[in-house]
Amino acid sequence: MTLADIHAAHQRIRGVAIRTPLLPFRDGLFLKPESLQPTGSFKIRGAYNALAQLTSDERARGVVTHSSGNHAQAIARAARLLRIRAVVVMPDNAPRVKVDGVSADGAEIVFVGPHNEERVARAHEIAEHDGMNLVPSANDRRVICGQGTIGIEIVEQLVEAGVATAPIVLVPVGLGGLAAGVAAAVKGLRPDARVYGVEPSLAADVHESLERDEITSWPSEQTVRTIADGLRGEAPAPVPFAHLRRLLDGVVLVEEEEIVAAMRIAAREARLVLEPSGAASLAGLIKHTNELPDGPRVAVLSGGNVDPDRYLELLRGTAA
Amino acid sequence: MTLADIHAAHQRIRGVAIRTPLLPFRDGLFLKPESLQPTGSFKIRGAYNALAQLTSDERARGVVTHSSGNHAQAIARAARLLRIRAVVVMPDNAPRVKVDGVSADGAEIVFVGPHNEERVARAHEIAEHDGMNLVPSANDRRVICGQGTIGIEIVEQLVEAGVATAPIVLVPVGLGGLAAGVAAAVKGLRPDARVYGVEPSLAADVHESLERDEITSWPSEQTVRTIADGLRGEAPAPVPFAHLRRLLDGVVLVEEEEIVAAMRIAAREARLVLEPSGAASLAGLIKHTNELPDGPRVAVLSGGNVDPDRYLELLRGTAA
Repeated sequence: MTLADIHAAHQRIRGVAIRTPLLPFRDGLFLKPESLQPTGSFKIRGAYNALAQLTSDERARGVVTHSSGNHAQAIARAARLLRIRAVVVMPDNAPRVKVDGVSADGAEIVFVGPHNEERVARAHEIAEHDGMNLVPSANDRRVICGQGTIGIEIVEQLVEAGVATAPIVLVPVGLGGLAAGVAAAVKGLRPDARVYGVEPSLAADVHESLERDEITSWPSEQTVRTIADGLRGEAPAPVPFAHLRRLLDGVVLVEEEEIVAAMRIAAREARLVLEPSGAASLAGLIKHTNELPDGPRVAVLSGGNVDPDRYLELLRGTAA
Repeated sequence: MTLADIHAAHQRIRGVAIRTPLLPFRDGLFLKPESLQPTGSFKIRGAYNALAQLTSDERARGVVTHSSGNHAQAIARAARLLRIRAVVVMPDNAPRVKVDGVSADGAEIVFVGPHNEERVARAHEIAEHDGMNLVPSANDRRVICGQGTIGIEIVEQLVEAGVATAPIVLVPVGLGGLAAGVAAAVKGLRPDARVYGVEPSLAADVHESLERDEITSWPSEQTVRTIADGLRGEAPAPVPFAHLRRLLDGVVLVEEEEIVAAMRIAAREARLVLEPSGAASLAGLIKHTNELPDGPRVAVLSGGNVDPDRYLELLRGTAA
């Protein structure tokens, strides 16, 4: 995966993903709100970059994926734009708004239980049985390059904003695809930049994997407890993990109530609706501000797909 | 006011106002979310464009303005950036979040009653007594040119999105400054475009003024009833009205519950927190979709400053 691959992805997704703005937020902080993308998360970048590279023969056979929700929506949208048949395997506890998004774009949904392995196994079965192309949400070089386009934009937009110092970039980490792509792009363009992952303490599998320097799984009974449904991955995926070992400067942890507080701050101070996973990096930025290196800080806000009732409960502090 | 003036304003505000994205939203619709600006509304464009043109002598004497809230915040921010003393006259029923925004940027606040004339009179008194420069929120060519920069961006961004057809642009109308600037820019660049104002039925003074072809006031007891606190102006200001007569293709009206519905849709489908005034154009777009001319439609979402508790009440449908 080279910087040239990520630049090529950036050209490929033009007109499908938008160039989200870099929003000034408090002194020296910036927000990159991927919640504003079509389908409501960064995932459209990677999904479209992957599907646009399929051969016509591969397109004819269709695609299948497994996802907690945002990648599913992105695959459904990209497949519709490219007129490809899509099947997505989702957990039966996915937010309604994510399920509706997939349906609206005409993809077929297969529901399984909440465990990551169930989704992966079922998607592989379908791929093999029906001869479809499996496009995983993180363990795929094309997908990672697509997510990396965020890093290109961050570096460009800091220059446009007159910021000359190397940035400190915070990225939420589920299976690691977003963080690997962003780190590769940001450090490819600015080797003096720093990139940190952010994980909920309840799903700190990547934090532990990096500490031990080997992929370490957490039980899904544990990770399912975080409200950040996009970050419940039980272990980093192998392809992004190889990049994270080399590129990531650390993983900071956040608590559930800090994620909810960041959702409130985003609504009030930045006028953004964020899902819990989307607010995690802002929570990390606020919590760890004194421990992070000096320099302009950027939080990648990964998405904004949250059920309206659930959102209001969380903002009011009445959530179960 | 020429297109060259608006282009000059666009250069002047670079690095202070952001280039908000043009968000694809449903088929053939686009949103221009000015709620993402620093200070949470489009007003920073006009305020900074005006203050940046003051002479050093004028800067030394300070500025005073009157505003329902968003222009106040923008003047406070622009004055802080340019190191100018600022006094703002605000109604005592302004949302808390707007008052806090003004305070945070260090401007002095003078509270008066809810009527527009009270604010105007008090600001003029202060300007005269203290020798300060009055920078009104709409009745000022420099301010209108600043707001017009939104129109330049819309035309540019539609081209970037591959949209060749002339757009139909919907803009909320309070005193008319935003609508006049956007209409001048959009039609200056694309004479075949159409620009419509949007007003709450409870504050349809500009609609009536255009129908009668003369400035017509509505009683503030009437206009204060709309939840769209930014659109409670009792009559169009003379400078923008002269442009609106020439440039506006009509004013569409929206009801209170339609504004609230649009706030909900913006949160769920576009992941944007909008204040009632900011959602009015989206409400107009949805309500009048069959009556508007064919073509790509753009709703200018003017701002997102709404008290958190009030916001949750409105979204839950429990507001008084």
